[in-house]
Amino acid sequence: MPTVDQYLQTNAPRFEQDLCELLRIASVSTDPAYRAEIDRAAQWVADRLRRLGLSTELIQTEGHPLIYAESPHIEGAPTALVYGHYDVQPADPLDLWISPPFEPTVRDGNLYARGATDDKGQFLTHVFSVEAWLAAEGRLPLNVKYLIEGEEEIGSASLQAYLEQHADRLACDCVVISDGAQFAPGQPAITYGLRGIAYFDLVLKGPARDLHSGTFGGSVTNPANVLARMLASLVDEHGRIRVPGFYDDVVPLSPREREGFARLDFDERRYFEQIGVDGAIGEEGYTTLERRWARPTCDVNGLWSGYQGKGAKTVLPAEAGAKFSFRLVPNQDPSKITAALRAMLAAMCPPGIRFELTAHHNSPGVLVPLESPYVQAAARAIEQAFGRAPVFTREGGSIPIVLSFHEHLHADTLLIGWGQDDDNTHSPNEKFALGDFHRGIGASARLWDELSRVTK
Amino acid sequence: MPTVDQYLQTNAPRFEQDLCELLRIASVSTDPAYRAEIDRAAQWVADRLRRLGLSTELIQTEGHPLIYAESPHIEGAPTALVYGHYDVQPADPLDLWISPPFEPTVRDGNLYARGATDDKGQFLTHVFSVEAWLAAEGRLPLNVKYLIEGEEEIGSASLQAYLEQHADRLACDCVVISDGAQFAPGQPAITYGLRGIAYFDLVLKGPARDLHSGTFGGSVTNPANVLARMLASLVDEHGRIRVPGFYDDVVPLSPREREGFARLDFDERRYFEQIGVDGAIGEEGYTTLERRWARPTCDVNGLWSGYQGKGAKTVLPAEAGAKFSFRLVPNQDPSKITAALRAMLAAMCPPGIRFELTAHHNSPGVLVPLESPYVQAAARAIEQAFGRAPVFTREGGSIPIVLSFHEHLHADTLLIGWGQDDDNTHSPNEKFALGDFHRGIGASARLWDELSRVTK
Repeated sequence: MPTVDQYLQTNAPRFEQDLCELLRIASVSTDPAYRAEIDRAAQWVADRLRRLGLSTELIQTEGHPLIYAESPHIEGAPTALVYGHYDVQPADPLDLWISPPFEPTVRDGNLYARGATDDKGQFLTHVFSVEAWLAAEGRLPLNVKYLIEGEEEIGSASLQAYLEQHADRLACDCVVISDGAQFAPGQPAITYGLRGIAYFDLVLKGPARDLHSGTFGGSVTNPANVLARMLASLVDEHGRIRVPGFYDDVVPLSPREREGFARLDFDERRYFEQIGVDGAIGEEGYTTLERRWARPTCDVNGLWSGYQGKGAKTVLPAEAGAKFSFRLVPNQDPSKITAALRAMLAAMCPPGIRFELTAHHNSPGVLVPLESPYVQAAARAIEQAFGRAPVFTREGGSIPIVLSFHEHLHADTLLIGWGQDDDNTHSPNEKFALGDFHRGIGASARLWDELSRVTK
Repeated sequence: MPTVDQYLQTNAPRFEQDLCELLRIASVSTDPAYRAEIDRAAQWVADRLRRLGLSTELIQTEGHPLIYAESPHIEGAPTALVYGHYDVQPADPLDLWISPPFEPTVRDGNLYARGATDDKGQFLTHVFSVEAWLAAEGRLPLNVKYLIEGEEEIGSASLQAYLEQHADRLACDCVVISDGAQFAPGQPAITYGLRGIAYFDLVLKGPARDLHSGTFGGSVTNPANVLARMLASLVDEHGRIRVPGFYDDVVPLSPREREGFARLDFDERRYFEQIGVDGAIGEEGYTTLERRWARPTCDVNGLWSGYQGKGAKTVLPAEAGAKFSFRLVPNQDPSKITAALRAMLAAMCPPGIRFELTAHHNSPGVLVPLESPYVQAAARAIEQAFGRAPVFTREGGSIPIVLSFHEHLHADTLLIGWGQDDDNTHSPNEKFALGDFHRGIGASARLWDELSRVTK
């Protein structure tokens, strides 16, 4: 593929400029205040695909727009569906960003911006690789379709609905997703398992107004005290989650998987150093990688109650709230767990407190068969572009849509993330290494070639 | 005292105007942003006392100004020291106020403003009563001193220091404090016991930055989870506080006290209705009034961590914090409890978390002897002004300075609050009934007469 390679090399600076254009659009999906930016980002993506000569549609939904595009059909060739998302997480806390979240800035070979690695910089690698094929070779060796959404960070409702209604249009042999991390710098990976999630908002309402904690304390149930008790009750002293039946459907890690993880070049001390901690507690009997990738969790994501300012305010708060979520492993059922959780918390709710449990988005975990010829094709493409064979790993985060692709399209999903673990996804100072960006484009260009050779 | 009564009646509207003037000053003591308002309030109080012809001093301190004033000395007459505070609690949450907190507004005979009952409206009753005596009688029947501070809501450090250094100047036979509530509308009370307090700020620091709860969850200690566990561990399932040795020094309620409380006309159902709850949990084996007035408590006053906005953010927070406080009963030692708490939390702190426990203000509880002739004089004055004999109660809140008066001045303290329990002290829509305000002024005027007759 010398002509494609030549094109990639020549156009590398322009790919960076194009990415920066998209990164300047603050397409935060969880906050309605950013709706105009969402629309601008969707329009940008549609324009970009249209300029490649692809048949492109900007699809309005009840939520944020979807973009669908497809290359001119080649009869008999395999079909790959590229999935990505143009929406991003909120940028707060803003004061911790070294450069502003929506002004992409290069430092030490890294591009810093909200969305750089999650997922704008990653999904665009599969756009630029197609551009290179079309410009350098005048053709693609296979059929490529794109489905790009704007609700990944808030549950993908519109995409899910579209997928249910248009499975025929989206029919493909494999789904290509770059929305995660390599195993380490210089060590690419193919991720064959993802955790699911069940996310909740818990609000406890006590007295009708904030009260003086001296005048009333002791005689009124304090919702913040009860909240602490409820949250503490979710995990026992061995790091096991106490929601009844929580582990019933968990498929144990196989000895082969545990051995594979143990063989990986994982430096736990360096991992903790990067995070800035001296160690960690977690579920007893499991290694750090197992806890991260393949065991369920319970994490409090947010807390609020009473007085949060400076100094002391002697208030007995009227309300207290928490956001918390379980990461689920394959075969756990979010609905079953939601029901068990609700019953457990309702039983704990004392006189003087009304409780409201809201279930946000949820999704089960997913595993992809390692034997798939498409997985093997991806491994070859990655080895060529990165100069090193990928390792096979799992991932602690969720891409709920992967499960839907599996259910509705019956296609294997190739999870080939170009990012790094320290990219500060969802945190201040999110970044994407420019080297990984360009190697990703190169691997994507080779992937089209390798996939075109798979015998169906 | 017909001339004094006549003066009070004639000047009632002007007393209200004067009070409103002081209430318009946003003298919030806990937040340094309000420092100029603190100074304005102190100046207002000093000017007001000076206008009565009292020898008045505005005393600068390391914190907020104190005001000291004294009437012309009458040899052989008893001396009363009036204590009050011109500082107020923060007004937030602002959106819950029906009228703005620093624009005093009358509705249904109540004056609504931050500080109306705590304590501007209450301590001014003892200023207006002296004004009436001086204007109507041309003299006071006893010696009156004033000590008014601006740090009551943040621990009274400057007043404590002043008291230690100037006990001679402040020497008196009794201290008069109106900074609390009557037992009920129409039922005045003398409060003979106050709870103490020990207030803490707990901050738990985990990873160096917020992390993605999918990518990292399970392998990193979550400070918000640990915070919930620590707070939950403070109280057991019987409502007993689990800090080691916490109850060692508690003096049990006497059977006489428990019987006295039980005889009070306390409607528990109405109490809960007013608070807006269907019941409450608390320390087992004690009534609602006992829990409120005479048993120690542990209340979370504030919580913060991670994402508090709308929607779901899958963040594993870098930090989590809580404000919480114990209410203490007489004979419990805050220092001892602080040390035991610190050791208990340190022992619970897991790998991956650094904990910072800051002790804010604290004070022990206090009891005043019911046999004191000054207490009996106050009871007579109140009965005359309110038309009903006061009951003797305890109070759940803290007035740390009462203990200091006891220790440094060896004087009995008369706790004669003119407020009501539903005055929304420390909450939005704080109010003070204008009827109670004027009856308080009348009782204060009679108190000077009754105290002057006490044989030393």
